[in-house]
Amino acid sequence: MNVGVIGASGYVGGETLRLLVTHPRVEITTVTSRQHVGEYLHRVQPSLKGFTDLVFSELDYDKIADKCDLVFTAIPHGTATEVVMALYDRGVKIIDLSADYRLHDHNDYDKWYGWEHPHPDYLPKSVYGVPELHRDKIKNAQLVSCPGCMAVTSTLALAPLVREGLIDTEHIVVDSKIGSSGAGSGSGTAHAMRAGVIRPYKPAKHRHTGEIEQELSEVAGSKIRVSMSPHAVDVVRGILCTNHTFVKREVSEKEIWKIYRKAYGEERFVRLIRDKKGLYKFPDPKFLVGSNFCDVGFDMDEDNGRLIALSASDNLMKGAAGSAIQNMNVMCGFDESEGLLYTPLTPV
Amino acid sequence: MNVGVIGASGYVGGETLRLLVTHPRVEITTVTSRQHVGEYLHRVQPSLKGFTDLVFSELDYDKIADKCDLVFTAIPHGTATEVVMALYDRGVKIIDLSADYRLHDHNDYDKWYGWEHPHPDYLPKSVYGVPELHRDKIKNAQLVSCPGCMAVTSTLALAPLVREGLIDTEHIVVDSKIGSSGAGSGSGTAHAMRAGVIRPYKPAKHRHTGEIEQELSEVAGSKIRVSMSPHAVDVVRGILCTNHTFVKREVSEKEIWKIYRKAYGEERFVRLIRDKKGLYKFPDPKFLVGSNFCDVGFDMDEDNGRLIALSASDNLMKGAAGSAIQNMNVMCGFDESEGLLYTPLTPV
Amino acid sequence: MNVGVIGASGYVGGETLRLLVTHPRVEITTVTSRQHVGEYLHRVQPSLKGFTDLVFSELDYDKIADKCDLVFTAIPHGTATEVVMALYDRGVKIIDLSADYRLHDHNDYDKWYGWEHPHPDYLPKSVYGVPELHRDKIKNAQLVSCPGCMAVTSTLALAPLVREGLIDTEHIVVDSKIGSSGAGSGSGTAHAMRAGVIRPYKPAKHRHTGEIEQELSEVAGSKIRVSMSPHAVDVVRGILCTNHTFVKREVSEKEIWKIYRKAYGEERFVRLIRDKKGLYKFPDPKFLVGSNFCDVGFDMDEDNGRLIALSASDNLMKGAAGSAIQNMNVMCGFDESEGLLYTPLTPV
Amino acid sequence: MNVGVIGASGYVGGETLRLLVTHPRVEITTVTSRQHVGEYLHRVQPSLKGFTDLVFSELDYDKIADKCDLVFTAIPHGTATEVVMALYDRGVKIIDLSADYRLHDHNDYDKWYGWEHPHPDYLPKSVYGVPELHRDKIKNAQLVSCPGCMAVTSTLALAPLVREGLIDTEHIVVDSKIGSSGAGSGSGTAHAMRAGVIRPYKPAKHRHTGEIEQELSEVAGSKIRVSMSPHAVDVVRGILCTNHTFVKREVSEKEIWKIYRKAYGEERFVRLIRDKKGLYKFPDPKFLVGSNFCDVGFDMDEDNGRLIALSASDNLMKGAAGSAIQNMNVMCGFDESEGLLYTPLTPV
Repeated sequence: MNVGVIGASGYVGGETLRLLVTHPRVEITTVTSRQHVGEYLHRVQPSLKGFTDLVFSELDYDKIADKCDLVFTAIPHGTATEVVMALYDRGVKIIDLSADYRLHDHNDYDKWYGWEHPHPDYLPKSVYGVPELHRDKIKNAQLVSCPGCMAVTSTLALAPLVREGLIDTEHIVVDSKIGSSGAGSGSGTAHAMRAGVIRPYKPAKHRHTGEIEQELSEVAGSKIRVSMSPHAVDVVRGILCTNHTFVKREVSEKEIWKIYRKAYGEERFVRLIRDKKGLYKFPDPKFLVGSNFCDVGFDMDEDNGRLIALSASDNLMKGAAGSAIQNMNVMCGFDESEGLLYTPLTPV
Repeated sequence: MNVGVIGASGYVGGETLRLLVTHPRVEITTVTSRQHVGEYLHRVQPSLKGFTDLVFSELDYDKIADKCDLVFTAIPHGTATEVVMALYDRGVKIIDLSADYRLHDHNDYDKWYGWEHPHPDYLPKSVYGVPELHRDKIKNAQLVSCPGCMAVTSTLALAPLVREGLIDTEHIVVDSKIGSSGAGSGSGTAHAMRAGVIRPYKPAKHRHTGEIEQELSEVAGSKIRVSMSPHAVDVVRGILCTNHTFVKREVSEKEIWKIYRKAYGEERFVRLIRDKKGLYKFPDPKFLVGSNFCDVGFDMDEDNGRLIALSASDNLMKGAAGSAIQNMNVMCGFDESEGLLYTPLTPV
Repeated sequence: MNVGVIGASGYVGGETLRLLVTHPRVEITTVTSRQHVGEYLHRVQPSLKGFTDLVFSELDYDKIADKCDLVFTAIPHGTATEVVMALYDRGVKIIDLSADYRLHDHNDYDKWYGWEHPHPDYLPKSVYGVPELHRDKIKNAQLVSCPGCMAVTSTLALAPLVREGLIDTEHIVVDSKIGSSGAGSGSGTAHAMRAGVIRPYKPAKHRHTGEIEQELSEVAGSKIRVSMSPHAVDVVRGILCTNHTFVKREVSEKEIWKIYRKAYGEERFVRLIRDKKGLYKFPDPKFLVGSNFCDVGFDMDEDNGRLIALSASDNLMKGAAGSAIQNMNVMCGFDESEGLLYTPLTPV
Repeated sequence: MNVGVIGASGYVGGETLRLLVTHPRVEITTVTSRQHVGEYLHRVQPSLKGFTDLVFSELDYDKIADKCDLVFTAIPHGTATEVVMALYDRGVKIIDLSADYRLHDHNDYDKWYGWEHPHPDYLPKSVYGVPELHRDKIKNAQLVSCPGCMAVTSTLALAPLVREGLIDTEHIVVDSKIGSSGAGSGSGTAHAMRAGVIRPYKPAKHRHTGEIEQELSEVAGSKIRVSMSPHAVDVVRGILCTNHTFVKREVSEKEIWKIYRKAYGEERFVRLIRDKKGLYKFPDPKFLVGSNFCDVGFDMDEDNGRLIALSASDNLMKGAAGSAIQNMNVMCGFDESEGLLYTPLTPV
């Protein structure tokens, strides 16, 4: 199958290509980047040297539609709406890695992005790209929107608890920690200013909240609010979501395990993590970097009726490019883990 | 004034000495460490080379009482009870950096430490060493117990809100992030295994919870529960506490500022941090490492009635040795900031 | 093919297993570790969770010989001599990751290790495991000794220059920088003490010098001395060798390129790196972490007649487990890159 | 004494201010920064919050001359020539932290900076600001030029060896490793791209080479060439210079110690480091961060007649702002260590 990557010069585009160059079922025919037309891809993505001689080309919808069965769009939020629409209308399958088609309700773009969606009629065409929640819809979709990295990580931990009606949905506190490859760029990203931070960067009203609320509300069948606060920490890759919840009734650890096993027992990319000893008692991105896993675990604070649901992922993998490839595999009828069975790189 | 440091080979003992060697009002007469008797201090604490020719001596209570007006005990939890008692009975002033005299109620040692306190009759003699809360008592104390690093950082952010009755005390979620110099040692501390972690290490029932509950309950005049979860992140020094609280009534940002200014406007070592732009919008240990500051700030999530109180400190300074020196200054009638006015080392 | 890993609890053993669990041509039948008999492998190597249910067994030579066609020994230097001999005598193919069979001359063990080799008669049976230098011998070997991580990285940069007689062999200065997963353990490895170091740890007489001298002397046909100094830097994986050499005659950059291309033009795991602009002008482990590449490049300092040959690798991959798998592929007639075509994980 | 800082928004300007705000002999009257006129200093240098209410003003030479006895210029190379000249002509004492007045021979600016110096007649007025080498000249200087961070670190290790005629001056290899706060900015400085690097960034012809050659040649009384290669490593502050030299005759370790003690025995800011055991056998910036020390040590490689002279410093302290304050103290007749006796911050 022929694929293309639009926006191949960033971290997410680079990671998508990293996975594609060794994927057994695809050939990459097109990579685009406005600033780099005519340059070798490996000059901009040096780790790909030795894997590809691709050259950046211009963004020409007709050519892309000719050369690609499926296209990944890895361009900034707000810039993908047109590109996705143009390719959609030409019949190309699209996996969008921006936020532009994640929210179903166009009012949510006003609320979370302060931005009126220019093509609200295309929003219903998009499936939210979490196979663990929407596998059947993804199979038949032409357009899949990959989730936000913190959103998918948090949602996978919370959804089973919400589904079972176990937790108080008025007090869901999601405290996220994330590495530099997932946070936006800006004046604080220079190494000397970014190293060693434990920096709250949007304690209230972070955009990914909208996605989590959308997905959990769908699971619950009623509107749910989430209190989310992200923090930048000194790591390049990795997310940990500490999802503090309060249970509505007494519950044993065994029962919680059952809930999670029921949800994810058959899932290839969700690992349930809990140990009484050793280095890996709870989820920690350290032990999954480079893989497509979302690790989920929990601890119980009986004194306060608090159930701490923990989830970790590699923000460029399950949080972006890994999910994209997983979605492609589902959309195209490939084995869901094909070209994705990367063992975590530990220690790194 | 002559001072001694018992347990001078660890991080906390080393930091205490770092501050003492240049403090204008003290002379260090004694440093002890069981494993290093007879060795030069600067061999074990290499950064002190050039500042001192002290040699480790044995732990001899009578000699120490002869040579020291005040002693810092920087030894592991559980081992300080005897030492503190022995020196107390000899009339020496003591600043204890272990947890052994922090909790007033001996039952709390059973609960949080799984350990029966051997000398509960000495607990009332100890003052909890946070000058911002207990300055007057510290002035006249013979024994001051320095607070846990995460406890003091979190408590300083929460106490004013509790005092004003502003927040729902059933849902106080304290999500802490801390560097490697503050966490205990163990199999996960080797660099290759510790670098890059975002590791929940005791999501429920962490010991510092007991201190925070003790202090906030005293402020509130009623028993308060706190939901605390600490995380290890990849930094050597620094703590951030994200204190998620829910307000009981509507409150403006201005009013919250007033509450904090009232509490800390005159405090030399609490800085109120909030900016709409720039690099330092919210507390972040990055901008206070090496100083004795506890930085406090907040953000408001109106959708959920959530007030996120943020606090940061250097775990070896305000979280340990800096507080110890501040307490010494108060106990001895020195200027409270004497020998402590270190500018934060930024960037580092 | 059935394989085993002896010493599966360390970093090198873990990395070897990481590569083996997804290698299409092998089945892992045995993993051993003295301290962990009976435990699940993934408890000790948490990143392997989801890939294997192997359990650690005891070191029983006969059982291993029954169950394994080939064995990787990843145990500390000095402890492998017996194990390797025992398995060798049972006809098992062995890839040894310790230093015990790297040096051909038993006197070199006295010199570099201060240790008399107990089985010097087995030294000639071992091939030094660098396919780029000894591919034909490896094909037919029963015992292959994987090179030291800094040794192979440096040697690959220097060998072509020595072979061509280009450089003054009296002044070869190898300045190496390496991450924490490759350096030995000890009191300085705790995160708080290891983070942020730029620590010279054996400026003279480091053991890997012996290997480099052995290999370069063989290439030169005469005895060559090397001046090597390793440094610990704050990274988990990665080596950079800055090989400072002085040319014996004027030489153009073009000619140097030709020399390197002649040596490595056909090699799958050596990339030649040089660019005038962009992020990847010279080798840097940042851009190859997780892969089996050794990147080689250079710069010319005409003022001093100095040719700086630069080489980088991932110390756990090309510097250890990656070389081991590459050697296995060569020994067993598999495609040399089978199960090894990992794209570098960038950024990480 | 009234002082000003021109270029107060960068790392070097910020560090200079960090030292000045608590220096007992100075009052800061002026800080300038083109982009920040009218803003509070602590908004741009957040760690100074609580120490100063200074506001950035415009660069007005006459006003500055009125308000300042001494000015620090911390602006980019090439932009300081005019500013320094203007203030010099107004009789102000100047400590320049750029490279614009470091080299005595204007031809060296062509060679190392590719840039014709616009005011070569002012070069002789400037003293190279290393008190350990030029204390007497600094005492009477109106203009002192602070050395490059790698230059001063390397020079302090090499000068005594050159002075004694001990080493072969044809083969001096300086391999430097430096943190992100000292390297220039550019596309590779974003945290995700800079973290974990071991990046050679100018293996030949780095500009600091010119300074080292100038100073060593002066010491030797003859023209000396130096082979220098800097590397970026993953730390914010800190430099290690591994100065590989070859001795011209046999020399004992004792003799080398004597040479260094003779040179630096009385120096407050040079520490001689060497130990057979413990964590601090050789210089390592880890153990001096935040202080003004340059630590010097060595190891002997008898096999190759190689003497490895090692030196470490904090690039923002002894490598920049610390040297600036030290120079100020000397120029103004203060105690040389006044306001500079910072204990290293370890661990950090």
